[in-house]
Amino acid sequence: MPSGPRGGSAIDAAIDERTAVGFVAICRADDPLGRYLTGRDLGVDVVYVRVAGETHLRVPSTVDVPEVPNASVRVDDRPAGQAAAAILADHAPDGTVLAPRTIPHDTALHLESAGYELSSTTAVRDARAIKDTEEIDAIEGVQRAAKRGITAAAVILADAHVEDETLVWGDAPLSTERIRRQVNATLAVEGVDSVGATTVTTGTRGGRDAAVELVPGEPIVVSVSPRGPAGYRGALARTFVVDADGGWERRAHVACDAARDVSLVEANAGADAGFVGSEIRAETAAFGFSMNDEVTRDVGGGIGLAAREAPQLDGDTELVEGNVVRVRAAISHADNGRVELTDVLVVGEDGPRMLGDAPTGLDPSRWSE
Amino acid sequence: MPSGPRGGSAIDAAIDERTAVGFVAICRADDPLGRYLTGRDLGVDVVYVRVAGETHLRVPSTVDVPEVPNASVRVDDRPAGQAAAAILADHAPDGTVLAPRTIPHDTALHLESAGYELSSTTAVRDARAIKDTEEIDAIEGVQRAAKRGITAAAVILADAHVEDETLVWGDAPLSTERIRRQVNATLAVEGVDSVGATTVTTGTRGGRDAAVELVPGEPIVVSVSPRGPAGYRGALARTFVVDADGGWERRAHVACDAARDVSLVEANAGADAGFVGSEIRAETAAFGFSMNDEVTRDVGGGIGLAAREAPQLDGDTELVEGNVVRVRAAISHADNGRVELTDVLVVGEDGPRMLGDAPTGLDPSRWSE
Repeated sequence: MPSGPRGGSAIDAAIDERTAVGFVAICRADDPLGRYLTGRDLGVDVVYVRVAGETHLRVPSTVDVPEVPNASVRVDDRPAGQAAAAILADHAPDGTVLAPRTIPHDTALHLESAGYELSSTTAVRDARAIKDTEEIDAIEGVQRAAKRGITAAAVILADAHVEDETLVWGDAPLSTERIRRQVNATLAVEGVDSVGATTVTTGTRGGRDAAVELVPGEPIVVSVSPRGPAGYRGALARTFVVDADGGWERRAHVACDAARDVSLVEANAGADAGFVGSEIRAETAAFGFSMNDEVTRDVGGGIGLAAREAPQLDGDTELVEGNVVRVRAAISHADNGRVELTDVLVVGEDGPRMLGDAPTGLDPSRWSE
Repeated sequence: MPSGPRGGSAIDAAIDERTAVGFVAICRADDPLGRYLTGRDLGVDVVYVRVAGETHLRVPSTVDVPEVPNASVRVDDRPAGQAAAAILADHAPDGTVLAPRTIPHDTALHLESAGYELSSTTAVRDARAIKDTEEIDAIEGVQRAAKRGITAAAVILADAHVEDETLVWGDAPLSTERIRRQVNATLAVEGVDSVGATTVTTGTRGGRDAAVELVPGEPIVVSVSPRGPAGYRGALARTFVVDADGGWERRAHVACDAARDVSLVEANAGADAGFVGSEIRAETAAFGFSMNDEVTRDVGGGIGLAAREAPQLDGDTELVEGNVVRVRAAISHADNGRVELTDVLVVGEDGPRMLGDAPTGLDPSRWSE
């Protein structure tokens, strides 16, 4: 399991390069930034200050002080910017302080009024985009659990039977919500958290928040993005159809599968990330779907401690070894519904590699564990 | 289920009162702010602008545009502050724009360079602190699911037997991690998400992230804070001991139970929130525990879409009807371990009321559903 703080050396290098005094970030309890920078799930809002090669954390007096190795943790009830300035002042009375450009405005103003000049840095974002072996292993572990979650859905669908044009499982009609709960129970037993990210949607009648009864012939998309014990996210989506009639949904599924294959050809170190995204969309559309109306615009992007992080699959970023990327091919149609395939790949020395080995089949009875 | 946008009228009132042009907030995908302001789980970062009584949302072109009733949703790839300024400019070329004081610094700077003066408002934070009936019902539903999750742990512990001074369940030693997974599976089947907030810790040997084998006589704390289908969080923690010897842990448990009762006496509308927090700590300490070293400093605070939100149980905030508050009594000792009881109560017209009805007993075999 990835442990210990990360990003410190990247921050120190940025401080050196910019002749800055230090670095300040606000880690909110629900933002994985704190986990990345300290190696711990802090569970509370903390002020993070890096100065002279050391990490200082400040928490309010209303929480229990977390134990964080390799960091000085103290209580300070002043506003975050003032608490940070007090630490910086031990080393330099003024100078440039680096911070993410999204640092809260009030924190920035407090630092400025304490005499520091603020300058934005992408050092942490850039460091997070390149995963080490421990991090890749952690994400691969989550992907294996994600596969078992999706497998639970496939087993239920394979086990369901048709009565009066609806799917029945056990003694009751099968709904998206019943499947969602079973998928989440499987994820829990596998030791990963569903974090509200599991969705089961169907055809044109289903929503993210609604329980919809399932019918044969309509595509059912099962999507999970669980968080593993070390905080890293996975992402896996598969589409199933019970009693497919072989029409639109098969063609859409072939297109998504082809787009998935394209990601495994194109996502190489040195490739332009925006080009990879365009290629995924273009391949999906090549099977006769409208690029504007039917093919998803969200073809994925970096994944790690956050479900969405750098690199984005647009713009002119260059993919590098260690990037871990969610790749997503999806097609929606007002009458026929939606088909989606989502996976996670790592940009490796020898090209891209899918993490986990989930099959892609549309028929749940042929899904193999 | 709570649905539809909230906070719009509070924002409009603040805009009127401050003679401002509009209100801007950045809703990140992992922050429940967007869910509150739009009534939807957006799943992506959005720029929220309220102007002339209407809601405008801006998303980047790399995501699928979410459907949000009662809001104009458009794609805009400019930085958030520029996208917001473009909407504001349709109504006023300059003037005061309200924003939460934690708005990202770069967004604030972009708004300022577009000609607007930024002024902070607590309108949304204050509105979120007062829950309506739908919201209270949602939290109560999550608390019922939380109780079933804790019940799963009690059932396992009541079913475990002692072999060679360790607890055994089924064919294998019982660890904190085995219980955690079963608790999370129960939460999943109940339709709520564990969101990484379930912890099972024991004695002096367990950590948040480690699997520790359980032994008789040592207190085991099971803590959950699940998220329900409408996004609202619950919070429930109970302490169990198998084969208690009746010493430290019983005294600590009586103290926590008494402190819990104090919250039900003191958390009335009009009471000082900081005083309620102090009383919880004082009552815990009254059973012979050290206020500085043993009694927790985290005695709770507001809960809703976020696990921690207003009101805090410190400072001189006044509790008002509709506040929903996590109350927590906990005692730690270097040799004896930790005991904790956490619940959620609502400040009602007729005084505080616990949400859910989880018993507090220390003996898992006497835990009643």
